Amino acid sequence: MLERRWCRRVRGGVAAPEGFTAAGVACGLKRSGELDLALLRCDPPATAAGLFTTNAVKAAPVLYDMEVLDSGRGVGAVVANSKVANACTGEAGARACRDMAARAREAIGGRGEALVLSTGIIGRQLPMDLIRAGIRSAAERLDRNGGPAAARAIMTTDTRPKSAAVRVRLPDGRAFTIGGMAKGAGMIHPEMATMLAVLTTDAPLAQEDLQECLRHAADRSFNAISVDGDTSTNDTVLLLSSRRAAAEPLARGSSGELAFRAALTRLCVGLARRIARDGEGARRLIEIRVEGAATDAAARAIGRVVATSPLVKTAFGAADPNWGRVAAAVGRSGEAIDPGALAITFRSRAGRVEVLRDGEPLDFQEDEASAILAEEAISMTIAVGAGSGRATVWTCDLSEDYVRINGSYRT
Amino acid sequence: MLERRWCRRVRGGVAAPEGFTAAGVACGLKRSGELDLALLRCDPPATAAGLFTTNAVKAAPVLYDMEVLDSGRGVGAVVANSKVANACTGEAGARACRDMAARAREAIGGRGEALVLSTGIIGRQLPMDLIRAGIRSAAERLDRNGGPAAARAIMTTDTRPKSAAVRVRLPDGRAFTIGGMAKGAGMIHPEMATMLAVLTTDAPLAQEDLQECLRHAADRSFNAISVDGDTSTNDTVLLLSSRRAAAEPLARGSSGELAFRAALTRLCVGLARRIARDGEGARRLIEIRVEGAATDAAARAIGRVVATSPLVKTAFGAADPNWGRVAAAVGRSGEAIDPGALAITFRSRAGRVEVLRDGEPLDFQEDEASAILAEEAISMTIAVGAGSGRATVWTCDLSEDYVRINGSYRT
Repeated sequence: MLERRWCRRVRGGVAAPEGFTAAGVACGLKRSGELDLALLRCDPPATAAGLFTTNAVKAAPVLYDMEVLDSGRGVGAVVANSKVANACTGEAGARACRDMAARAREAIGGRGEALVLSTGIIGRQLPMDLIRAGIRSAAERLDRNGGPAAARAIMTTDTRPKSAAVRVRLPDGRAFTIGGMAKGAGMIHPEMATMLAVLTTDAPLAQEDLQECLRHAADRSFNAISVDGDTSTNDTVLLLSSRRAAAEPLARGSSGELAFRAALTRLCVGLARRIARDGEGARRLIEIRVEGAATDAAARAIGRVVATSPLVKTAFGAADPNWGRVAAAVGRSGEAIDPGALAITFRSRAGRVEVLRDGEPLDFQEDEASAILAEEAISMTIAVGAGSGRATVWTCDLSEDYVRINGSYRT
Repeated sequence: MLERRWCRRVRGGVAAPEGFTAAGVACGLKRSGELDLALLRCDPPATAAGLFTTNAVKAAPVLYDMEVLDSGRGVGAVVANSKVANACTGEAGARACRDMAARAREAIGGRGEALVLSTGIIGRQLPMDLIRAGIRSAAERLDRNGGPAAARAIMTTDTRPKSAAVRVRLPDGRAFTIGGMAKGAGMIHPEMATMLAVLTTDAPLAQEDLQECLRHAADRSFNAISVDGDTSTNDTVLLLSSRRAAAEPLARGSSGELAFRAALTRLCVGLARRIARDGEGARRLIEIRVEGAATDAAARAIGRVVATSPLVKTAFGAADPNWGRVAAAVGRSGEAIDPGALAITFRSRAGRVEVLRDGEPLDFQEDEASAILAEEAISMTIAVGAGSGRATVWTCDLSEDYVRINGSYRT
């Protein structure tokens, strides 16, 4: 139905879709002088959807944004800062967050609500002088070319900014754009190393359809690099639509909406893989494909147990084909598996090696397997013999650098 | 009711109670020439209780021992080897395990069944020539003084053997002894770095009372340094009674049985703390006391989430009072908490510092807090304001050495 090149990459990140401008500035939160405050504007105010941390300890901006989205009011701006999470900051933190939103709204001329994102150290108050000056300065720089700078301004321990956009063309000639930026996840499960993502589009969708598409895409991307519930105090994924691509909304269940959902999922998977690959201290992206689980949900659960096992992750760090740790992780997942049907295969650019089949260890060349695992991107297929459920999750290796980074994060 | 010195430490480890002899030998599994095979004998054959891994992928010795315990037959010997786990080894592994049991039974003259424990690398077959010779050699050395050597023979990445014994004297003059040995747990949750413990006693108890006392003690000790279900393919805790201390069994619910249960719990907590302290690469023992949870079980669940958070553990490794990571871990536990009542206090020999009270961050001296956290044993109290449930769990810090050890475990 869709043409071969129905969805192609374009430049511009979050500011790629019609109606959006963005900026990233250095307001002094990062002592290094790097960008630390991002502003995104949507004109006209956007229809907005959001997913928030399930953590019972929610940061001030999370509580604030949930309220704004509940109100259903249009969103004219998103302001985001790195370095300070504004979490566990009590009443003073809540006031600072409201002030931040008010300043952002003011800076864009008062059209629509402002959403707030913060990421960084918990329990420290925001230096509001710096934030206010930063918002003013960012507002002056809002631009269609500001997407990459905004993506850079939300980085914490990320080593690379994560920004992407795609252009979708439907068979009937209609077209729309989706943009996005994200920040990692120190480790694969975005605990305190908050995961933030802002997605933008000009595709016209009703608020509830936006929300449904966002849930669908996030389950297959950001939630597939994260243990459910292993969320930080600040994790937030936002999807804003300027509705500028067409007057007529994409109807629910229409081929247009399905194309939107597919393109959004593809964009989110790309950002999520980059978050996993850029895990703190990581040298490798590890794709875990679970097959033969009782259900897709069970497959995802098994994949997550494997993806978060420190023993599995350290073995991958050392390019060690220590599949016994994988088998042990699968076994403790609590999901139905058939130990006598267990099979494990490693795959990368360097080749493919099956190490376990029908629960029996296979003879394989250690050095050949090590060479396969020494690549930068590795795929592991685990068949568990309990049904036809399947899922893919992504993680990274656990290195000594992870420990070094997290031992000195606040200093 | 009990005297002040009702329970005191004695020498001898697993061979301290009447009826037990033990030995540890080097049979060549460890290339270094260190002890790697332990044999424990009980005469007469012991009443036995056991707890086994909940991992769906169970090692051959786990499946074998479960069968033996189910039969209710007396246990004359326990044979244990390190270096090779005999897990994921298929039919050949099951045969090797049965052979190991048969040789042990033969070596002690055929009185009673033999239980088997294996720990080490998954997916590798046992070199049975070495094992058989080791069993013969160990049988010749069985001795009341062999407890410490047996404890040394079951070590893998443990840096210290873990052996202990206590002598209990009841007000009515009756007395009994409990001995034990354990091996770690690479990390706090004994995944592949299998946790094994063998407990012995001469106190006369019925099999079901032994099992109940073991469950009680393990929940407060070995299971409090472990995430439920985060078990290895081989985790096993055994409790054997020679019943030699008295003819009359300790009746269920009697003061004698309660004293036995309390002493067993104390012994197990001591061994468990040593496992946590000796976690791979660990420099610190961290005690986590959770108060004010909805129930004791909820408190334990919260404690475990904190105890397994890599971000919390790396912060402790760096003596960094990064309490935000603790708050985030508490929040994602899924248990009922009141964010507005959250309080966190750090404590050690060097002092005490409260960092969060009623959900509001407190001013504290960073260097003073760092000095408190730089000690070798640290206690952290977390009040969550949702009830009166409480629990204590133990963990260790996560260091770069952990990653180094686990990246090179098989080489």
